[in-house]
Amino acid sequence: MILTVTLNTALDITYHVRSLRPHASHRVSEVLERPGGKGVNVARVLAALGHEVTVTGFAGGATGRVVQELLTATPGVADALVPVAGATRRTIAVVDEESGDTTQLNEPGPAITPVEWNAFQDRYEALLASASAVALCGSLPPGLPVGAYAGLVRTARAAGVPVLLDTSGEPLRRAVAARPDLIKPNADELAELTGSHEPLRATQDARRRGARAVVASLGAEGLLAVTPEGRWRATPPVRLRGNPTGAGDSAVAGLLSAEAEHLPWPDRLARAVALSAATVTSPAAGEFDHRTYEKLLAQVSVTTEANAA
Amino acid sequence: MILTVTLNTALDITYHVRSLRPHASHRVSEVLERPGGKGVNVARVLAALGHEVTVTGFAGGATGRVVQELLTATPGVADALVPVAGATRRTIAVVDEESGDTTQLNEPGPAITPVEWNAFQDRYEALLASASAVALCGSLPPGLPVGAYAGLVRTARAAGVPVLLDTSGEPLRRAVAARPDLIKPNADELAELTGSHEPLRATQDARRRGARAVVASLGAEGLLAVTPEGRWRATPPVRLRGNPTGAGDSAVAGLLSAEAEHLPWPDRLARAVALSAATVTSPAAGEFDHRTYEKLLAQVSVTTEANAA
Repeated sequence: MILTVTLNTALDITYHVRSLRPHASHRVSEVLERPGGKGVNVARVLAALGHEVTVTGFAGGATGRVVQELLTATPGVADALVPVAGATRRTIAVVDEESGDTTQLNEPGPAITPVEWNAFQDRYEALLASASAVALCGSLPPGLPVGAYAGLVRTARAAGVPVLLDTSGEPLRRAVAARPDLIKPNADELAELTGSHEPLRATQDARRRGARAVVASLGAEGLLAVTPEGRWRATPPVRLRGNPTGAGDSAVAGLLSAEAEHLPWPDRLARAVALSAATVTSPAAGEFDHRTYEKLLAQVSVTTEANAA
Repeated sequence: MILTVTLNTALDITYHVRSLRPHASHRVSEVLERPGGKGVNVARVLAALGHEVTVTGFAGGATGRVVQELLTATPGVADALVPVAGATRRTIAVVDEESGDTTQLNEPGPAITPVEWNAFQDRYEALLASASAVALCGSLPPGLPVGAYAGLVRTARAAGVPVLLDTSGEPLRRAVAARPDLIKPNADELAELTGSHEPLRATQDARRRGARAVVASLGAEGLLAVTPEGRWRATPPVRLRGNPTGAGDSAVAGLLSAEAEHLPWPDRLARAVALSAATVTSPAAGEFDHRTYEKLLAQVSVTTEANAA
């Protein structure tokens, strides 16, 4: 199975209102709930691609119970979340039906105690024994050491399990030094990590800092990959319009599933770009349409990339 | 015990954000949760006044479980909510810390099936056997007949239990004809019921429509009562500034508790006005400060009122 780690899981709630006006009262016409957090989103896409996935991380309180109930009801996804005393956060996306725009309200995550963090690390090590790959995704909840991901990368490497890391800021900087197999920063995260706004230069620099391979997601321009096996650029066939929510998580799922299937890099990148594009163009945020994905997969352009000057 | 009925219970969630801006992403700095719906608020005030209260109505889904857990943890309040398949609604108050203003997002209530409505009516009739008074409060959730409150008023009258009704619109109009002991409309609800914007005239008209007594809440001007025993006007000592959330529910609790203690009308009205005023001036929405309440109680002015011309 593929393991995904979401230390700051969430219940993603979507509200539809006619038009959000500050300081007014609004009747919510539609309520949707989905388990969330980056690693959970990655797991959902992996399961939709036919992979067996196990989700770990933390869950607590009434919201944590709902997240676990919804995960258990998702075919192909196994719930291995570790219980905590604090409450799993809710994120609320208020969709304005007149403009289509979204207003986001994000609760803070639960504070994780050292005992809970130790319990998680034990569970994680046990789960790695049957994992073909692991993805470490998203922000750290309060209470965890900034080097949390660095430790999880080292544990995966010691277990011989390929590890993909998708986070940002100081936790990313620390964890890169622990030599993950793959990181997938976006342009902002890459610039923050390396200080360079030139994507190819920054991507190469991120490798020098410790990542075995770096796949930079450059929004509508697709992906730029710098790996020990070569450098590629993968771009979607057309300029896509839609909702970018979850596009990065779909790209992670594409890379991870293709790696688990031992596909060569160009195929991994094509899959990641096609999944990401099919997520942007899907009417439901964070979902993707299988037929669109398969159509786009044949149209993604993957070209080799020269060294930075 | 005093029984309060909340057919559309809620989990009231309060979020604090720096400043709410449509179409932006917000970090919520503080999350508060409280069981809500008008009858639940009335029950909390009654319990704070030292009365034994039982709460009935509907609860369903994960949110309903949280409401029941929080009710069970409230001293003096007994939970007699009836389970339903649908999910209890959440209401979210987003408090803007810069301006102090609140933006409200209200989920729709669960649709109640005829079987669930019958189960509730049986439970209600059984609870009335040990009730000294009953309050029917708030809006109807989807699925209930518009005459729902009218039926509940008749059942209470048949059981000889004094019944206070606090609702609006067509459910109020229907239920007034069933001859409740007391209704507590605000100026808008009274105008909608009677077609008159002149408070004394409208209050007298509401009595003619079937209510044994009518206590109209006129905001900062206090209460106007038209009863078989006489007519009174009760006003707070000073113009109050603060948050009016829950002031009406506190007035209902004041009227109901004083009725259960067989106090004369002027004392009932003074208590309702003082509680309402102590709720407006409290920093926490819907709460009241005991010392402020007792200080205000001595200062409420209650005067007899002449007939309308």
